[in-house]
Amino acid sequence: MANLTPSRLPARNTTELKAILEVLEQTPFCTVSYVHDGQPYALPTGFCVYEHELIIHGSIKSHFLEAVLAAGDVCVTTFLFDGLILAASAFNHSVNYRSVAIFGQARELTDPDQKAASLQAFTERYVPGRWPHLRPMTKGEVQATRAVAIPLDQASLKQRSGGPGTTQDPWSEKVWMGVVPSRQVFGEPIPFEGQEPREVPEHVKRLLK
Amino acid sequence: MANLTPSRLPARNTTELKAILEVLEQTPFCTVSYVHDGQPYALPTGFCVYEHELIIHGSIKSHFLEAVLAAGDVCVTTFLFDGLILAASAFNHSVNYRSVAIFGQARELTDPDQKAASLQAFTERYVPGRWPHLRPMTKGEVQATRAVAIPLDQASLKQRSGGPGTTQDPWSEKVWMGVVPSRQVFGEPIPFEGQEPREVPEHVKRLLK
Repeated sequence: MANLTPSRLPARNTTELKAILEVLEQTPFCTVSYVHDGQPYALPTGFCVYEHELIIHGSIKSHFLEAVLAAGDVCVTTFLFDGLILAASAFNHSVNYRSVAIFGQARELTDPDQKAASLQAFTERYVPGRWPHLRPMTKGEVQATRAVAIPLDQASLKQRSGGPGTTQDPWSEKVWMGVVPSRQVFGEPIPFEGQEPREVPEHVKRLLK
Repeated sequence: MANLTPSRLPARNTTELKAILEVLEQTPFCTVSYVHDGQPYALPTGFCVYEHELIIHGSIKSHFLEAVLAAGDVCVTTFLFDGLILAASAFNHSVNYRSVAIFGQARELTDPDQKAASLQAFTERYVPGRWPHLRPMTKGEVQATRAVAIPLDQASLKQRSGGPGTTQDPWSEKVWMGVVPSRQVFGEPIPFEGQEPREVPEHVKRLLK
């Protein structure tokens, strides 16, 4: 079992599930790390949380998912970049962030209904309200997709927020100090050129808010 | 040696160093994966490219950097999220992205001058033009920092761009299809409250452009 006790700076850490779920909801992608032949491998991928597990998915032909299931043990990490901390010295520069680490055993979702429901949750997580507009998923599409679940009972959140710490550095008088906040945003939707022009639907416009 | 031949969808991949360096320059963070006691571990962290190597750094007391150096073999991944691809079926939804994977042996930068130069490159990579304004780095600060280098000769770039593929799906007539682009942006700088108000310097304002 992985040691979730933070080794340094404990004030920035928590294993409280509610806080972890809130951050995962706001984080679009994760990185899944696993061991194959004693070597480290990792792949960034989308995810959703479904029935208290983290779900990743891909083609049934995906070598990545095959390797993850063969490995069993995974480490999943997420990272949200919230801002740059600018101090008077390079040494005191830092970053505001929220980062989750999850250790667990990956398992395949084999029940077709559960798999289909997790894929619906996946779509709705990225584009809330889109599902009812889509052509319904076919049985063949569900069969062609592999969904892999990782439990969340060994998860921890590490974060930093706020500004630069008060500093005794005399250069604090000379150098502009502060935070430059950062976030991921959506831009104006670009309609598919192979389609008759039509109004951008509300569920797509809402992504920009 | 890791197999860098993409297993599927080869058109989206390249091992061309110039393209990889361009993407790394635009990517603020990476995830470093390694093996300890046969288990996978990973940590998201900042990085820069210095003298054709990827550099990460932290406190000399960092257990993470100690474990990375003890493991030797690492897999470093990066991910830039460029947009959502909205299709007529959930199955054909996708994501535009640029993702680098690097396999290599981590080694410590022990030469103090080389370490100091890599830390300067680090600061200048995140906030170009800030270095000359800062209180110069002390010998003690360089000693208290550990810098770890990972070579870039086993790196590959995987990416997707453009819109949804042309589809034969009859629902293409009914459902809005297209791309919702996405990117990470900086917001208005927040001055440190422990400091006399002053003009935001040009090198900070430039981050917002």
